Amino acid sequence: MSSITTRLFAVRNESPGAGPARAGRFATAHGEVLTPAFMPVGTQGTVKGITPEQLREIGPQVILGNTYHLGLRPGDGLVARLGGLHRFMGWDGPILTDSGGFQVFSLASLRKMTEEGVTFQSHVDGSPQFLSPERSLEIQRNLGSDICMALDECPPGRLERPKLEESMARTTRWLARSRAVPLRTHQGLFAINQGGTHLDLRRRHLAEALELDAKTPFQGFAVGGLSVGEPKEAMNAVLAEFVRELPAERPRYLMGVGTPEDLLFGIEQGVDLFDCVLPSREARHGRILTSRGKLNLKNARHREADLPLDPDCGCYTCRTFSRAYLHHLFRCGELLAFTLNTIHNLSYTVGLTRAARQALLEDRFPAFAQTARAGWMTEEP
Amino acid sequence: MSSITTRLFAVRNESPGAGPARAGRFATAHGEVLTPAFMPVGTQGTVKGITPEQLREIGPQVILGNTYHLGLRPGDGLVARLGGLHRFMGWDGPILTDSGGFQVFSLASLRKMTEEGVTFQSHVDGSPQFLSPERSLEIQRNLGSDICMALDECPPGRLERPKLEESMARTTRWLARSRAVPLRTHQGLFAINQGGTHLDLRRRHLAEALELDAKTPFQGFAVGGLSVGEPKEAMNAVLAEFVRELPAERPRYLMGVGTPEDLLFGIEQGVDLFDCVLPSREARHGRILTSRGKLNLKNARHREADLPLDPDCGCYTCRTFSRAYLHHLFRCGELLAFTLNTIHNLSYTVGLTRAARQALLEDRFPAFAQTARAGWMTEEP
Repeated sequence: MSSITTRLFAVRNESPGAGPARAGRFATAHGEVLTPAFMPVGTQGTVKGITPEQLREIGPQVILGNTYHLGLRPGDGLVARLGGLHRFMGWDGPILTDSGGFQVFSLASLRKMTEEGVTFQSHVDGSPQFLSPERSLEIQRNLGSDICMALDECPPGRLERPKLEESMARTTRWLARSRAVPLRTHQGLFAINQGGTHLDLRRRHLAEALELDAKTPFQGFAVGGLSVGEPKEAMNAVLAEFVRELPAERPRYLMGVGTPEDLLFGIEQGVDLFDCVLPSREARHGRILTSRGKLNLKNARHREADLPLDPDCGCYTCRTFSRAYLHHLFRCGELLAFTLNTIHNLSYTVGLTRAARQALLEDRFPAFAQTARAGWMTEEP
Repeated sequence: MSSITTRLFAVRNESPGAGPARAGRFATAHGEVLTPAFMPVGTQGTVKGITPEQLREIGPQVILGNTYHLGLRPGDGLVARLGGLHRFMGWDGPILTDSGGFQVFSLASLRKMTEEGVTFQSHVDGSPQFLSPERSLEIQRNLGSDICMALDECPPGRLERPKLEESMARTTRWLARSRAVPLRTHQGLFAINQGGTHLDLRRRHLAEALELDAKTPFQGFAVGGLSVGEPKEAMNAVLAEFVRELPAERPRYLMGVGTPEDLLFGIEQGVDLFDCVLPSREARHGRILTSRGKLNLKNARHREADLPLDPDCGCYTCRTFSRAYLHHLFRCGELLAFTLNTIHNLSYTVGLTRAARQALLEDRFPAFAQTARAGWMTEEP
């Protein structure tokens, strides 16, 4: 057992190529994770509109659970008493839980920050709540996720530099407190790097995390605070310089990203893990991701179209239904529209990272990326 | 081919028992139908919230499509051009389409009846529409369903007798016109019997249908105009006398019924086919049908219940999830709650008719019915 345990989360890079992009794999107690991988978001213990059986066919390597939401409802104690989040939601693959910080800063009201943590009002029932580094990890320990995230302060995208530095200093102090919290043996803790689009701040923040890491290692490193309203070029400039400086033998996770274009760019910089609500949220709005670019299912030109959403896709939706049928369901507001569109958008996104991995293994990634980008330029997919 | 065609819809009674209840089977171009059978309703070309793959596991013998809804949106011409309803919605088993009459009388506004048919305003876009016996069957021919229903006038439950007789006379004239409409070779036409709770009117109406039948046979007979607000005892009294008088070698279909109790009573009287939105609609409201009676998923006592909705059920929902999880999903308004509850309620209802069939084949139906009824009396299922 201990030999397996020590191997958990250690990334083996399998790419023959020399660039920063990598095809990796690492072990968790709920199975190996093949990277690069896109992780669908299961906010309240369900990827919206999708059964675990359908999710298994889509084939994500990891899914996300939400500490803020699940801690409030049904409550992490209840989930623990029922055997943990895996059993509760019927998913036996790896689960990553976020820290809850992002939701406290975006959903909760009457927020009050102190050094100890943040008090806020629940968006569900208005009850007073408290989140701290310790409480966040207590929730994640109760949920029993494989990958836990340390609570960070989530500064807004365009915060001025002195305020941002203050916020980062607090995040570092919180990171030290997080590292001291005992987790279950199968759980790994990821540190989150902040610093906005300032490369020097990112580096300084990473150096602080690596000091803590030298005493007790983190199991992975996440890049947070991007894709939060800053210009795309600024985000990409940071990623291009910074991702390769993260420890190579640990998973690298770019939080809250994103579009197919962003995923491809992130992979090129050496990112292993991504998560975003975009594919599933877009699906519920009838916006479909395809190898030929984005398609609006509401458009009248799909009314009688006897072809799949994406002729290059092998998902259940594309194997079974025409655009005409899906257009009809969406126009009628039928529940099945949400499910079938989500199956496709998640299959497309997960499939994109899987295909990128295959291209990396076969040392033909630049050609793959070029073909993918050319496809997205198609007019009227 | 012709030998198969002539056998379509002819009921073979396989029950060894002598009572009116029967286990039958009849052929359609899309497969044999084993009866008694509950037919889930797929109003707009989808059983709400359920994929055809999930539906296949639930295992209904026939599903319903809705002539009124599909004729308005996406339009029967479009469905025909895309290869018919089976292909459009991805369901290759038998499909029954209703006549559209019930929806015209319950959903449409500015309704005007003439001998020719009924003009009304579409509930979708307010456009003027016209439905007649001929137009109803034209839509059903375009949809390509296996079983077509003749358009009837749907009188309200407590209509006074002279008005009811007038309405029935029109339905008979419409039935003659329906019989004259050519259908596709795989399609069968069912006649609908009206007469409210008046046994003598039901018999007279049946005699009129049988006169038409003598010239060109109908492929089945439906009992309409029940379960529309009349006292349950009055409905049951009619069923107890009347169902056995319907031609034995043709399928007998009790329209718009119903609850598990109603299904069992109908089967006892010799009904073969049932349809109702009740199981799927109740599911979406968190009301769960079980072998131990009805269960309200919203109830706080399920908050931490680590047991399936129905311990006697083998459906995907019951195999995979606890009441606590389903309670959580439902409280959060998650889409998956609707899907999983619907899978269970339909599995339970379809399973009830399947178990009744097995009991009939094994000549132990009275004991089966007694056990089922005793189960439904359980307090706090």
